[in-house]
Amino acid sequence: MDNGLSKLGERTKDPPISWLMKVALDKPELISLAAGFTDGETLPVSDVRKIVSQLCKDVKYARNALQYGSTQGDPELRKLTAQRVKDLDCADSASYSAERVLITNGSQQLLYIIVEALCDAGDIVLVEAPTYFVFLGILQSHGIKPRSVKIESDGININQLQKILEELSSSGEIKRVKFLYSITYAQNPTSITTSLQKKIQTIRILKSFEKYAGHPIYYVEDAAYRELSFIEDVPSSLTYTPCADRVIYAGTYSKPFATGIRIGYGIIPHALIKVFCRIKGNQDFGSPNFLQKIILRAIESGIYDQHLKVLSKRYLKKAHIMKSAIEKYFDSTCKWTMPGGGMYFWLSLPPGVKTGLKSKFFSMAIQNNVLYVPGELCYADDPEYPAPKNELRLSYGNATEEEITTGIERLGGIYKQLM
Amino acid sequence: MDNGLSKLGERTKDPPISWLMKVALDKPELISLAAGFTDGETLPVSDVRKIVSQLCKDVKYARNALQYGSTQGDPELRKLTAQRVKDLDCADSASYSAERVLITNGSQQLLYIIVEALCDAGDIVLVEAPTYFVFLGILQSHGIKPRSVKIESDGININQLQKILEELSSSGEIKRVKFLYSITYAQNPTSITTSLQKKIQTIRILKSFEKYAGHPIYYVEDAAYRELSFIEDVPSSLTYTPCADRVIYAGTYSKPFATGIRIGYGIIPHALIKVFCRIKGNQDFGSPNFLQKIILRAIESGIYDQHLKVLSKRYLKKAHIMKSAIEKYFDSTCKWTMPGGGMYFWLSLPPGVKTGLKSKFFSMAIQNNVLYVPGELCYADDPEYPAPKNELRLSYGNATEEEITTGIERLGGIYKQLM
Repeated sequence: MDNGLSKLGERTKDPPISWLMKVALDKPELISLAAGFTDGETLPVSDVRKIVSQLCKDVKYARNALQYGSTQGDPELRKLTAQRVKDLDCADSASYSAERVLITNGSQQLLYIIVEALCDAGDIVLVEAPTYFVFLGILQSHGIKPRSVKIESDGININQLQKILEELSSSGEIKRVKFLYSITYAQNPTSITTSLQKKIQTIRILKSFEKYAGHPIYYVEDAAYRELSFIEDVPSSLTYTPCADRVIYAGTYSKPFATGIRIGYGIIPHALIKVFCRIKGNQDFGSPNFLQKIILRAIESGIYDQHLKVLSKRYLKKAHIMKSAIEKYFDSTCKWTMPGGGMYFWLSLPPGVKTGLKSKFFSMAIQNNVLYVPGELCYADDPEYPAPKNELRLSYGNATEEEITTGIERLGGIYKQLM
Repeated sequence: MDNGLSKLGERTKDPPISWLMKVALDKPELISLAAGFTDGETLPVSDVRKIVSQLCKDVKYARNALQYGSTQGDPELRKLTAQRVKDLDCADSASYSAERVLITNGSQQLLYIIVEALCDAGDIVLVEAPTYFVFLGILQSHGIKPRSVKIESDGININQLQKILEELSSSGEIKRVKFLYSITYAQNPTSITTSLQKKIQTIRILKSFEKYAGHPIYYVEDAAYRELSFIEDVPSSLTYTPCADRVIYAGTYSKPFATGIRIGYGIIPHALIKVFCRIKGNQDFGSPNFLQKIILRAIESGIYDQHLKVLSKRYLKKAHIMKSAIEKYFDSTCKWTMPGGGMYFWLSLPPGVKTGLKSKFFSMAIQNNVLYVPGELCYADDPEYPAPKNELRLSYGNATEEEITTGIERLGGIYKQLM
């Protein structure tokens, strides 16, 4: 008897990261430089307590918060969200309207809705190499073919993008290309921030291939780490008004504030917002109203922005600690750059040193009670773009300062042993 | 140029209910007997305030609540959930284990995951007639063919189920049948509670057709209104241990506690739990940890059960008010029964009196500032089962006592005018 699963059910694999999480759970003494958890010590416990306490004082408002909301999201929060992104972009265009905003359960749910709304099995999505591995899981589950475009210090390699699209046009596969997915601020995993110029170049190239595709090719800008940047903000692709109707902008309040309060959002082209809302409605009617009101109050009261400052400072400090440790315990044949924000170092060892789940490096790391994300997990399964085997993603998000130093010291020790 | 949507994106229709919601928003003076909103006055504002305040006093615990949790859900909450359902069922079997529990964003998300995990476009799902219309939206979006089975005073018509399955076996379509969806406690919209006998008969029949289907045919028991029952509890289908591996049980803490805190759950067969978790992971990593901890504390402290008592009493009172009004303002040619729980009356007018969105009855209701859900919206689009046109779903969930009486009085006036 067959198991009765759908094609999607059949395809959906256990994410490799879940195995890492199991390892971490089984060994509580383990130093995890793997998880993208946010810094524990700065989580806004007293802020949330204060907000909820005040919110509940106004009984009418509180009842509203404990009731169903609308599928698209709290109107005030959507308005404020459009305004926040507009302010960040120092822009003034119709792109930033509450009507275009959809509130989601973290930006993750938005990514899921994007894929559901735009892609059938067999379609193609362009991704950065490396990219956010959970997004690859969504693609894999839906039977979508990822095509990798190398990421460089200021964003993807434009020539490579052009070449891939030309090839896909020649083969006729361009009709299956639905969007390009780019994590533009302190990218997970490389911490690279994409320049505005690269964003505009990318959108223009995508646009120029639409006549072959026969449909819009969207630019999905994942700005999850934008507010956790140490460097000067770069305007988003929404500022490129000639093509603002091709931009799907994904943001989140979870990573910067509290990941246990999962509120993300999208700014969606007019042509898509209704469909996205309908899918969201089918998935869960709308994100929890109570959490939306907490975030709304946090922003309105200034608590959110105050918290951002504290958190960015904290991450910057931890980034410097990790930087010092890497400088001390690894040598100059290893490549890395100082992150521009977020919570990750991307470390390339000499090509011979493998870091994958089955590598000696990895098993020695586990033996030494340190966990990291093997870089190869962050690459799409794209036969045209074999994944490098010598990279590591190292998170300073939730590790303590001491753990960061100790963890890197141990990894450096393994590196030296293997060299 | 085509719009580039996926097949799912193309298919996903605006739910008819969203039009009703717009009407309600545009006319704030309108009495809504349409929405399934929970009673506003009893929403647990001070309870939530107290819980959050206490939770935040324990900083370590609170940080944990504000951090990511696990995809499957908080282990303590899963344990407690399994125990609660086990206690309700007065049962003692391995079916009620935390390993089988998945925490979701309301039970709605679980329904979505069930469909994604089990169904491809063209598959068949058996539903009650009438049924929960939002579930029909999920099926429509995924291109799934619903087949209707009439619901009677104690559950579906078993002979009809048998007949439909025989027909589907003859035509070979039985291979496409994946599950039967039944809302077993105070059903939305009819408020009918299914007897245990009917549940067992249903499961046995489904099981007997598996040899023709070539795969399991699951019984999805949606118990969303179980804890909001006025009548004696009926054991769930999980108690029928010979087929417990065919039961997907859906429950929720949202409707009974606070719909703004959207935490639902499923008890899932071992053969499916991993796949469900993977899909959940792709959708959003896991439900918001903060909300899970609030529900956990509410249950542990007894607040949740205390609230259930208050709410059930309140709904029972409102149900009696609506009953009296219907008795007063409608005549004996109209059919209805006293709900066994939940928040709906299901009213059948004489066959000639149409109640649909385009009917005279409906437009007169809007003119008179009363909103209801036309019964025909609660039927699947099944050519073999044309929807009756003379029914109404009337909710006493969020209307005040006065609104209930006034609303029914106005509808009764329209009825008399049209007769």
